[in-house]
Amino acid sequence: MLKVAIAGASGYTGVELIRLLLKHPEIKIHAVTSETWQGKPVTDVFPSLADHIDDEFVSIDSSLLSECDLVFLALPHTTAMEKVPGFLKNNQRVIDLSADFRLNSAEVFEQWYNVAHSQPDLLSEAVYGLPEINREKIKSAKLIANPGCYPTSVLLALAPLATEDWADLDSIIADSKSGISGAGRKASLGTHFGECNEAVSAYSLGTHRHTPEIEQHFSGLAGREIRLTFSPHLMPMTRGLLSTVYVNLKKSMSADELANHYRDYYRQEPFVRILKTGTFANTHHVKHSNYCDIGVQVDSRTGRAIITSAIDNLIKGASGQAVQNMNLLCGFDETLGLDAPGLYP
Amino acid sequence: MLKVAIAGASGYTGVELIRLLLKHPEIKIHAVTSETWQGKPVTDVFPSLADHIDDEFVSIDSSLLSECDLVFLALPHTTAMEKVPGFLKNNQRVIDLSADFRLNSAEVFEQWYNVAHSQPDLLSEAVYGLPEINREKIKSAKLIANPGCYPTSVLLALAPLATEDWADLDSIIADSKSGISGAGRKASLGTHFGECNEAVSAYSLGTHRHTPEIEQHFSGLAGREIRLTFSPHLMPMTRGLLSTVYVNLKKSMSADELANHYRDYYRQEPFVRILKTGTFANTHHVKHSNYCDIGVQVDSRTGRAIITSAIDNLIKGASGQAVQNMNLLCGFDETLGLDAPGLYP
Amino acid sequence: MLKVAIAGASGYTGVELIRLLLKHPEIKIHAVTSETWQGKPVTDVFPSLADHIDDEFVSIDSSLLSECDLVFLALPHTTAMEKVPGFLKNNQRVIDLSADFRLNSAEVFEQWYNVAHSQPDLLSEAVYGLPEINREKIKSAKLIANPGCYPTSVLLALAPLATEDWADLDSIIADSKSGISGAGRKASLGTHFGECNEAVSAYSLGTHRHTPEIEQHFSGLAGREIRLTFSPHLMPMTRGLLSTVYVNLKKSMSADELANHYRDYYRQEPFVRILKTGTFANTHHVKHSNYCDIGVQVDSRTGRAIITSAIDNLIKGASGQAVQNMNLLCGFDETLGLDAPGLYP
Amino acid sequence: MLKVAIAGASGYTGVELIRLLLKHPEIKIHAVTSETWQGKPVTDVFPSLADHIDDEFVSIDSSLLSECDLVFLALPHTTAMEKVPGFLKNNQRVIDLSADFRLNSAEVFEQWYNVAHSQPDLLSEAVYGLPEINREKIKSAKLIANPGCYPTSVLLALAPLATEDWADLDSIIADSKSGISGAGRKASLGTHFGECNEAVSAYSLGTHRHTPEIEQHFSGLAGREIRLTFSPHLMPMTRGLLSTVYVNLKKSMSADELANHYRDYYRQEPFVRILKTGTFANTHHVKHSNYCDIGVQVDSRTGRAIITSAIDNLIKGASGQAVQNMNLLCGFDETLGLDAPGLYP
Repeated sequence: MLKVAIAGASGYTGVELIRLLLKHPEIKIHAVTSETWQGKPVTDVFPSLADHIDDEFVSIDSSLLSECDLVFLALPHTTAMEKVPGFLKNNQRVIDLSADFRLNSAEVFEQWYNVAHSQPDLLSEAVYGLPEINREKIKSAKLIANPGCYPTSVLLALAPLATEDWADLDSIIADSKSGISGAGRKASLGTHFGECNEAVSAYSLGTHRHTPEIEQHFSGLAGREIRLTFSPHLMPMTRGLLSTVYVNLKKSMSADELANHYRDYYRQEPFVRILKTGTFANTHHVKHSNYCDIGVQVDSRTGRAIITSAIDNLIKGASGQAVQNMNLLCGFDETLGLDAPGLYP
Repeated sequence: MLKVAIAGASGYTGVELIRLLLKHPEIKIHAVTSETWQGKPVTDVFPSLADHIDDEFVSIDSSLLSECDLVFLALPHTTAMEKVPGFLKNNQRVIDLSADFRLNSAEVFEQWYNVAHSQPDLLSEAVYGLPEINREKIKSAKLIANPGCYPTSVLLALAPLATEDWADLDSIIADSKSGISGAGRKASLGTHFGECNEAVSAYSLGTHRHTPEIEQHFSGLAGREIRLTFSPHLMPMTRGLLSTVYVNLKKSMSADELANHYRDYYRQEPFVRILKTGTFANTHHVKHSNYCDIGVQVDSRTGRAIITSAIDNLIKGASGQAVQNMNLLCGFDETLGLDAPGLYP
Repeated sequence: MLKVAIAGASGYTGVELIRLLLKHPEIKIHAVTSETWQGKPVTDVFPSLADHIDDEFVSIDSSLLSECDLVFLALPHTTAMEKVPGFLKNNQRVIDLSADFRLNSAEVFEQWYNVAHSQPDLLSEAVYGLPEINREKIKSAKLIANPGCYPTSVLLALAPLATEDWADLDSIIADSKSGISGAGRKASLGTHFGECNEAVSAYSLGTHRHTPEIEQHFSGLAGREIRLTFSPHLMPMTRGLLSTVYVNLKKSMSADELANHYRDYYRQEPFVRILKTGTFANTHHVKHSNYCDIGVQVDSRTGRAIITSAIDNLIKGASGQAVQNMNLLCGFDETLGLDAPGLYP
Repeated sequence: MLKVAIAGASGYTGVELIRLLLKHPEIKIHAVTSETWQGKPVTDVFPSLADHIDDEFVSIDSSLLSECDLVFLALPHTTAMEKVPGFLKNNQRVIDLSADFRLNSAEVFEQWYNVAHSQPDLLSEAVYGLPEINREKIKSAKLIANPGCYPTSVLLALAPLATEDWADLDSIIADSKSGISGAGRKASLGTHFGECNEAVSAYSLGTHRHTPEIEQHFSGLAGREIRLTFSPHLMPMTRGLLSTVYVNLKKSMSADELANHYRDYYRQEPFVRILKTGTFANTHHVKHSNYCDIGVQVDSRTGRAIITSAIDNLIKGASGQAVQNMNLLCGFDETLGLDAPGLYP
């Protein structure tokens, strides 16, 4: 049994990691950390886990962590980067759910995150953990940068177009809609029920930090630098993320042809489902699962492709994908512990 | 006091019309119709109105309707068109909340609605009731086609760009997000709580009937035929509609410059509010009011303007706008009965 | 025009007071205070009010307040009591929305609020502002203690039973269900969207501070000391409060008889509506209004009366009731500014 | 592998049964029926199950059903009773999720359901499938009447009191709060999003059909006939059911003593969790799981016990409990396929 630690486990990605790993047949949770709650039973903070875990939260500096084979970091941005070198030096694998190692340029990081990167040398060592585009590298990685929720949904919608000359990659617009849990569990006015309930709003238009993450990894696929417009929106629901992605087409094609192209591209993927033509992505159908559903349409009147992709932001957009990366890294079956369909309704 | 009738008053736009008109100082509700509920007190169907209205629902064929100066039609599409000629012949003004008279071409109507238009001659007589672009015509109209909720929000976001040579009108994409009440009050699987709660989905991509409505009226403003992409989405909330509209810019400009342009354009408008630069439209701030809030941004990295506009779909997107049209038509102050701020939260 | 101030206006009861008072024909908002937001325009904090109010928030110590005829206090508990003596000395009327003056005993206050009352002498001067049971006293009050949301709904459900010998007043159980806005606007884990959305929970069973408030004022009506069980619950919605109140009956009676008794009792009340027998209170029908809807049932199998009462917790349960109290205090029509039906849906 | 059929599988309990059984290691889904959707792939109706099930819906009269060892009936009330005799004659076990066999008296059934029972002889043969009170009988049953969601939560809250002389069993009041999915998937005005969203309401007070079901099975435990008051309420959420149960105590006791009594009573139960004193049941903590969480309190001021119990109405309140019953009936481990903790948030 692999021993794993989850650092920063009192947030929403943390509790979802605990839940997924508790039922994973090949690993054992050896330590869960929270500076706020250290000394408290995990089940005091998350009563949903009662009868499933006896652990108390420990500090991230607990010696328990040094006994683990693999560490998941569900820490805030910039906190994670300080911790990674110690684990790597200790020959432990790290799957980092923060944004700290998702960009390959310290300069770009500083530009969007307004803080210098303290571990620029590690950026080139980190592997971006989106299995659908990086599977082989993930298998031998030491440090995996687990993708953001928005980039996961947008990149999966876009990847099949990256090398097609009939798609105008300079015309890409991604309009994304996320549930509130994407903002984390920290109390704030912005996540107060009375503020977000029954409300749909746009935010950070043109300035959201997931923009360079999407651009860099899509540029990697396309083989040239691509810029795109990314617009995040908040939805009055807990889980789920839908991206509607627009791309101008350089040739006429039907929705069926486009769908077949997507089906070919993702034929081997266990967690990507291409929807029937005429139906579109719905977060309800992927909620509580590791799936990404993709629906395609061609607006032939304007010559645009419209790609919709839906994920559960806490699973395929965070903790489920982290487990998928762990499975690849450790040589387990990629779907181990992740193969349940979502709960409906 | 003006005598008015509301035909088809047992739906959501109907009850909202009743509520607004009950407090309107210049009119009296003389008849409310519902074929399903005729003979029942209005307050049996809408207990929220108890102590405010004593009327029973009558049939649309009741003689009460012929005694009215003005008739609001909140009937299903294609039902409305059959009723309009009778009222006009009787010299009554009609404000039609259905889609039946929003397009000026019977051919286009048939193409998108899959049914022949039975009153093609009246199409040219109908005035499209969006006061911000059609105020003078509305004042002297006999038949007003009250705009759809999506077209209201998209056209208000786009109107200030229609004659500007720095906006590429062939690049327009409108990504709209609507609350469930936009689908009406009729029971259906698609509006079942268990189906739409906690779910965000795209629908009718490339084929929604509001597309030609938006295109026709925007083309009118632009002075040439414009085609655009319109994508509707369903949000898990009752009221509210947000449109995020993308337009390529042909020159470099700042968000402040763009905002000032919008402020100039809408300076005289009582129900359009241009947001501070850096803030974006939020349905929560217009809910329960007749306002349209518009936020603008320039994504200078890609050269695109991003316009967000938010309305309450049942007020500015339907019944409030109908009252605004009535006010104009009848020579009342345009804001009469509509000047309350929204309720928050 | 009466000059009024709203102290602590950046919370949910504050914004609701502003909204109601903006449209009140007899008063003028002269000052709105917030220590956190002082110097900021009110519309920066509440964009829903844009175009309706130009004021900036000021400190509660601003001289503007001393120029007001009446002050609404929407301050946290224990903060309010410190401010009241100054206003009273200055001959200003005070309507206090906090709990500080709702109990007539400093001892009971200390027992339930775990803090000594700093103004025990004022307790006997304060009038409990539930117009349906205290109308005459309110008219001549100097200091009004505006009732809590739970006590409003429970007392209105119970008042008609207080002096009836067929109701066993020692058997009362009140099971109340409140929307999240009742917890205020302060950011906390408990009001985080991810925590309360899609969740129903009980809290403070047997220990909630509204218990002695209900007991004291119901005991006053009954003419003897009554103890009852009060159980609050949180509901995943923003506004609305439903109480289901159980009382053993000492004689056999039908639901119709009981309903008629309630109708008689509340015959003159402008804001209490007794529902048709066979229908029960629903928060949806009173939302956004100052109404309290009451439905009654007799469970003849067990000999119990079941009274349901629904209010909008921010209106009849807080700010609307405060305006109703102001109307009485100032000799205005009691319903002035409050007579709109709720918005549905 | 056991072959099972799910009849009436296109509703919410149906899809939840499919989901649970798909991952059950000892059984194979052999047929899923729906008269409405027969001939359609299950995944057309439930896209969440895509890649997990290839079956098409068949008619309940399909010969596939006669090949099954066990049949789950998720049919409407009164439809189920017509189908049961055929399956029993064919020596197949039946777990019926309808109400048809939950009462042991045809007379009481007719009184509450307003229709004669067509299979009165089978009533005595049916075993009420609440494992916590009926485990041994379930193991050898041929026909299991799966309990209703409300009765499950109320009976689990009450069972530990049934034979205690310090509990006044004539004073029981159960105030229950259910999510909308409890009303099934059939489209209706009452389950329309616009009607139930942001609304809390009471319904069927004193007349709900689950009342005799609770009374009969609790009376069985108590050894004498008990009548109680049961009040159902609708909550604006999809899943979850909370019952708050009130019982007068005949002796003084602390919450800790009461909690210990409950812990003793349920010591062996895999799916009942007694909460720490001072915390109360929250549907959020059991959602998506087969758990029932129970919190207890003593209101010493009034001498009442307040028991809160929370379940997921579709799992422990329906399909999960049906699987638990199947496990017992078939000699599998009782928790097989049901041992996952809930998803949070």
